Amino acid sequence: MSEIIRSLQRDLNEFGGDLHLIGADMLGGRHPGEHPDNFGAGAMAMPATPEAAAAVVRWCAENGVFIVPQGGRTGLVGGGISRPGDLILSTARLDRIEDIDPLARTVTVGAGVTLQALQEATAAFGLTPGIDLAARGSATIGGMIATNAGGILAFRNGVMRHQVLGIEAVMPDGSLFSDLTRVLKVSAGPDIKQLLIGSEGAYGFVTRAVLKLESFNPMRATALVGVRDAASALAVITHFRSLPALQLEGAELMWRRYFLDSAGERGFDLDWLEDGTAAVLLMEVSAASEAEARTALEEGLAGLWEQHGLTSGIVAASLDQARRFWALREESDFIYRLHPAAPSYDVSLPPGALDAYVADLGARLKAVHPSFDAYVYGHVADGNLHLSVIGEGAAAPAVKDAIEDAVYTGVTEAGGSFSAEHGVGTEKRRAYLTYGNPARRALAQAIKAALDPKNLFNPGKVPYRAD
Amino acid sequence: MSEIIRSLQRDLNEFGGDLHLIGADMLGGRHPGEHPDNFGAGAMAMPATPEAAAAVVRWCAENGVFIVPQGGRTGLVGGGISRPGDLILSTARLDRIEDIDPLARTVTVGAGVTLQALQEATAAFGLTPGIDLAARGSATIGGMIATNAGGILAFRNGVMRHQVLGIEAVMPDGSLFSDLTRVLKVSAGPDIKQLLIGSEGAYGFVTRAVLKLESFNPMRATALVGVRDAASALAVITHFRSLPALQLEGAELMWRRYFLDSAGERGFDLDWLEDGTAAVLLMEVSAASEAEARTALEEGLAGLWEQHGLTSGIVAASLDQARRFWALREESDFIYRLHPAAPSYDVSLPPGALDAYVADLGARLKAVHPSFDAYVYGHVADGNLHLSVIGEGAAAPAVKDAIEDAVYTGVTEAGGSFSAEHGVGTEKRRAYLTYGNPARRALAQAIKAALDPKNLFNPGKVPYRAD
Repeated sequence: MSEIIRSLQRDLNEFGGDLHLIGADMLGGRHPGEHPDNFGAGAMAMPATPEAAAAVVRWCAENGVFIVPQGGRTGLVGGGISRPGDLILSTARLDRIEDIDPLARTVTVGAGVTLQALQEATAAFGLTPGIDLAARGSATIGGMIATNAGGILAFRNGVMRHQVLGIEAVMPDGSLFSDLTRVLKVSAGPDIKQLLIGSEGAYGFVTRAVLKLESFNPMRATALVGVRDAASALAVITHFRSLPALQLEGAELMWRRYFLDSAGERGFDLDWLEDGTAAVLLMEVSAASEAEARTALEEGLAGLWEQHGLTSGIVAASLDQARRFWALREESDFIYRLHPAAPSYDVSLPPGALDAYVADLGARLKAVHPSFDAYVYGHVADGNLHLSVIGEGAAAPAVKDAIEDAVYTGVTEAGGSFSAEHGVGTEKRRAYLTYGNPARRALAQAIKAALDPKNLFNPGKVPYRAD
Repeated sequence: MSEIIRSLQRDLNEFGGDLHLIGADMLGGRHPGEHPDNFGAGAMAMPATPEAAAAVVRWCAENGVFIVPQGGRTGLVGGGISRPGDLILSTARLDRIEDIDPLARTVTVGAGVTLQALQEATAAFGLTPGIDLAARGSATIGGMIATNAGGILAFRNGVMRHQVLGIEAVMPDGSLFSDLTRVLKVSAGPDIKQLLIGSEGAYGFVTRAVLKLESFNPMRATALVGVRDAASALAVITHFRSLPALQLEGAELMWRRYFLDSAGERGFDLDWLEDGTAAVLLMEVSAASEAEARTALEEGLAGLWEQHGLTSGIVAASLDQARRFWALREESDFIYRLHPAAPSYDVSLPPGALDAYVADLGARLKAVHPSFDAYVYGHVADGNLHLSVIGEGAAAPAVKDAIEDAVYTGVTEAGGSFSAEHGVGTEKRRAYLTYGNPARRALAQAIKAALDPKNLFNPGKVPYRAD
């Protein structure tokens, strides 16, 4: 057992089991999540109450121990990795769904609750957290706040920031910041809790939150549609968004290579797909009934067919088939089975800029190495693309910077971001310093110095210094 | 002409007409807006470019001149008042709508553009800024960002913060902070621009913004419905929000005294209203056609009639009649004609707490003085109430604190806010210090010290010190 754990147990023993301290021995039996170094610290506290979490933070401040906050460890950019001598502060036991208010459409929820648990609890009231993503089974509300998570509904409901009404957090001085307002409208001076959203644990440790909820309608229809490019997909999306009698519930675009390999890996039948189709749009709509949703989807697509160059399409005949459509998009692990360690990216661009970007990206990658190409897929309605670069030696450290430059060139200038929804973590350090906004970076650092002068929280991550 | 104006003209003459400096002589011919002290400084700069605005701020920093940012001067809490020796920095000439992107559903807009001008420009694309309020003709985008404005669509689309994607601002050190991302998804480190939203000019001067746009559907139906309380209004609202084939476009509740006096002042016919109705709900819905909207509204209300204690109702027969319905709610000036200087408030509570709050408020006001009562009306779906207190001597300074305590008691504890959408300004100083969140206040002050150590921006307003 580590010295840190022993000292914490001794100094904070009045909290008893509420601290739930574990060392390297017990961590060894757990899954470290998406990054092998997440458990590098070999010491973890899983406080069961905000007060216990605050006591741990105060102890760390007094003893010069750095804190690495962790949620579901589904982060893809190494934002939760820890080093020997750090303490991992986990939200795992802050896992209560405290209060669902169907009239106000709000929920008060512990930071350690998974998205899926919250989705299931709110569905009983015909409501949803309004945000959804493939890692729903393990991603936690606290982690989603820390990364300002996006996902598949952001085009309609906005990102995590737009769902957060209240936050309780332990600040770097060990105080409990509690701003658990349960209303949409608060214009009562600077809204400090916004700093905790999307800051990857740099400014504090979120313990609880109040989230806004949205209507959930299970009456749906789902289709796969072959399109000639992102512009044609966006024309279809714009049409369906303008129809008052239905809601667009999903619009995901998979470019050719991604779609074909995903389908091939899953044994998904492609007889319906016209040869040479450039990309496939996965669309889901909801309406007053399943039949209406299906009719609206079929008729809407038929009306757009020629004008927008749709090549082929199928509408799911059952919920089970709809799930298979979604699996093509959400279960992207096949990429790493086919191309181990393929470097992956997550950019956002104004949707109208997507086709030019994808074309230019292909050319820039070929300029790095003629064998390079990319899997491209993502949330087309909000311009968020996920990319994995493949080709001879694409995973080699020597070409890392060249590939990054190929991926990020022009993104900021177009009004987009080098990181859309995954955060910065450790893996996007260079991108943050090269393609991030310098004024924003400097101010983030100034605020870090004001709020966390000892650099206690998640050191060595955002806000990185440029030096 | 003031010494400040003369010195600015001399020192910054390379900017020529782009500074647009005016002194007390020319301010005298303009309307000071909602507060008589808005023009107290007697000196105003109306820069036409962000660069000119930045030069003015640098000059003020060097010369120890305090800056009071102003937009449309529609603020109701004295957030824009200025004193002799200050310089008013106006957004009036930053009034360009630069770019509407219908595919991305975004607009890039100068801070001085009015909400109505933006609504009209986006309507041509079937889109809306997603936020609407009665002061639309003069309220500016910059001012709405500074106060995190709410209004009548917040229950559906969220508040101003949820519509802002990008911000450009002059910071207290005179640098131009430009984070004009045009995408929904940015997870690229701490999102510093959030500090500029809802901070009433404490941290900088917003010059431009990128806003998210929403679908606008003009196919509408509007009704006035007598209800027995907020709970019955909320049951009606919840029902309509669960219907996939229509959208709720407005849900405003007017308690009895407000509704009767507003109708009386406007000569609005009340034959349809059952005697003794406790409150009247103004509802607007949109659907695929006006006929469908009207049918859905009428049938929906008929189905809820007995269960939810609806007493009476009328559906507007024309757009003109719908406008008269809205005027009852939006043109609240009659209050001040009938009760000059009636003190007014703007609180938010979880909607389920409204009836108990209104009942308790009445009792608390009567305890201050038996003649006291309140006009109560507002955005019931998000729990935002506007209140004006009337009765013998209600406007007298001697009872000010007692009335405030009657209005604000229990609001914070219920998860609400002492200021929902109007801000703090100067008039809610005591409320901010008494009913505001102490941790939030302290952190706001720490960040003010880090970003604006000379207290250059909007001094004497938020973040107030508690001492």
